[in-house]
Amino acid sequence: MIDIDQIRSDTPATSRLAYLHNAGAALMPTSVVSAMKQHIDLESEIGGYAAADREAGRLDAVYGSVARLLNAAPDEIALVENATVAWQMAFYSLPFRKGDRILTAEAEYAANYVAFLQVAKRTGATVEVVPSDASGELDIGALERMIDERVKLIAITWVPTNGGLVNPAAAVGKIARAHGVPYLLDACQAVGQMAVDVEALGCDMLSATGRKFLRGPRGTGFLYVRRATLQRLEPPMIDHFGAPWVSRDEYRLRDDARRFETWENNYAARLGLGAAVDYALEIGISPIEQRCRMLAGRLRSGLAALPGITIRDLGRAPGAIVSFTLDGHDADAIVASAAAAGITIGASDPSSTRIDAELRSLPHVVRASPHYYNTDAEIDRLIGHVASLAPR
Amino acid sequence: MIDIDQIRSDTPATSRLAYLHNAGAALMPTSVVSAMKQHIDLESEIGGYAAADREAGRLDAVYGSVARLLNAAPDEIALVENATVAWQMAFYSLPFRKGDRILTAEAEYAANYVAFLQVAKRTGATVEVVPSDASGELDIGALERMIDERVKLIAITWVPTNGGLVNPAAAVGKIARAHGVPYLLDACQAVGQMAVDVEALGCDMLSATGRKFLRGPRGTGFLYVRRATLQRLEPPMIDHFGAPWVSRDEYRLRDDARRFETWENNYAARLGLGAAVDYALEIGISPIEQRCRMLAGRLRSGLAALPGITIRDLGRAPGAIVSFTLDGHDADAIVASAAAAGITIGASDPSSTRIDAELRSLPHVVRASPHYYNTDAEIDRLIGHVASLAPR
Repeated sequence: MIDIDQIRSDTPATSRLAYLHNAGAALMPTSVVSAMKQHIDLESEIGGYAAADREAGRLDAVYGSVARLLNAAPDEIALVENATVAWQMAFYSLPFRKGDRILTAEAEYAANYVAFLQVAKRTGATVEVVPSDASGELDIGALERMIDERVKLIAITWVPTNGGLVNPAAAVGKIARAHGVPYLLDACQAVGQMAVDVEALGCDMLSATGRKFLRGPRGTGFLYVRRATLQRLEPPMIDHFGAPWVSRDEYRLRDDARRFETWENNYAARLGLGAAVDYALEIGISPIEQRCRMLAGRLRSGLAALPGITIRDLGRAPGAIVSFTLDGHDADAIVASAAAAGITIGASDPSSTRIDAELRSLPHVVRASPHYYNTDAEIDRLIGHVASLAPR
Repeated sequence: MIDIDQIRSDTPATSRLAYLHNAGAALMPTSVVSAMKQHIDLESEIGGYAAADREAGRLDAVYGSVARLLNAAPDEIALVENATVAWQMAFYSLPFRKGDRILTAEAEYAANYVAFLQVAKRTGATVEVVPSDASGELDIGALERMIDERVKLIAITWVPTNGGLVNPAAAVGKIARAHGVPYLLDACQAVGQMAVDVEALGCDMLSATGRKFLRGPRGTGFLYVRRATLQRLEPPMIDHFGAPWVSRDEYRLRDDARRFETWENNYAARLGLGAAVDYALEIGISPIEQRCRMLAGRLRSGLAALPGITIRDLGRAPGAIVSFTLDGHDADAIVASAAAAGITIGASDPSSTRIDAELRSLPHVVRASPHYYNTDAEIDRLIGHVASLAPR
């Protein structure tokens, strides 16, 4: 049972704003803010190195917290600057040759897709898009039929950035495992809003960010790499932290996932990330997921009932991202008018998910993303605001 | 003229500590701490995206500040997580083939050297170390003699991590330009303690950190790439920020150095970096350099006069890093005893600069690194402390 009053008092801005932009960057709880500011103060009191030494135990515990969140082991976790770096360190570690096939999904995120294109150009591998089924989810049957010995990677975004779609990530994992194909899952919009269990998912690599539904700081991200996979991957770039210089002409990669890290880090941000994960674990991911879906469902059905509104979400059981358009209104104008009314939402550009956007002829869409700290009243405020813009 | 009282009041820890560990991480001025904490507060008040939007002007100005510091243009600057990432993005962009030669210096930093080794293994390029002259500086004559058409990169550390050496970076630049060889300069320990002018240096690429002599936050770094060089370099890894996804099978690299960045960043840290650069520019790099050399000189000569001390610094005009050993005392024990006496210094491990350390049979060395905010009295406290440990 979520103590909503406590949570809102831990999130002071909720008293002033209807903040429904958690798929962009969520509001941080005060424990996250304090963790960062206290560490910055400590750095200014005793210096950056001594501060990291003094907080070594808490810094190390961040790996444990992230591992608990994912049902992984701490040595399978790398902490990095952002989700893109996490994803890149995994993706660019994989060897590809001419004719190799990379399979992805229609709503794959732009950051990942341009990396596919770069590697395809470099190596002669091909990028192929698994079609979606009638509901808009990745078509598991189609994926199964596309598998052959030339498929060297399945890389999909679990929860795309541009709407409520939740791809069948665990079903994809079953196919990947059955055929021995490496599976890289972008969980950027999933962590913090739903249970993320790498065993249940069957993924070999998973990347995520701190700032979205996890409510952590900007400039934080992490990578999970399954222990067995880890040992086979040499990072695309190394320094002496991930790969100590052991003799004049030799380096030796670390045994753990920290081989994907570099030596220097923003420790204040790391402690903030740890606090965010601990805060989510304390509440419980299951009640968080339940409340996210309830609030998003209320928003989706409330908006759907308005004239001129088109809900743009795909999939059988959409998550906490609600995407829509309103006839005759530009998405950015809706975002701006909501902001003026104290309601924070965002928009999604077609170029973030170009293939899906082209298939569906999507314009800019409005993206509203509630979280467990939101209330029914805030949802209704947004519905009311959009209603006031809609034709009568 | 440096207003030392003002500067020390901007650096509250100086009232309690003799902080001589600026080659590790310097004490941040209050303006840096405030810039970060205020932005974190703003993020918690209005959300991380709105905060970045509101501070867009100040965030953009950071590029201008860094550019001024380096005598470069803002579009030649990329802001990244740390100096290693900056260096990697440049180094791993360069194409190498079997037989290509990479020239470096004896005291090259471990992070860079393991990357050389990785690329040598991948491509068949060779890594060759330019010998030092009698003073311990990179031997310019030897470098000149080593140049041939197979040399595809000169990459050196200007101020190595393990002592006072200041390599002749501008003389190296003259040779690189004369022969049309790309020149990557690691300026990690140089920025903030001495004038760094990319035109005078003649480097094509330069990497640096925020946390050392610049007095910026941990987890900040930047890369300079000359405009003409930039256009020829494709980053080793890309996302849709550095390389927008312009049509289904095409990305287009940005025209500026931000092609080496990723979309998501720690904006609080960036603002801290900008405040640190502005603070240094306000004081003036020339008076900073003068005072650093004066204090380091006082420390070096004071220590040299003690029995059992060996000063380990190389070069004709050593900078603000003072390295030494004391007969019969382990470096870490000296660091710990100094810490107990309120004096913060560090040590350098031979594996950080393995080639130089092996050539000179260096053990762990004590590393004391004063900055302009230190006083003669603090220098003398350290000398006195070491004297109390030295044999009589």
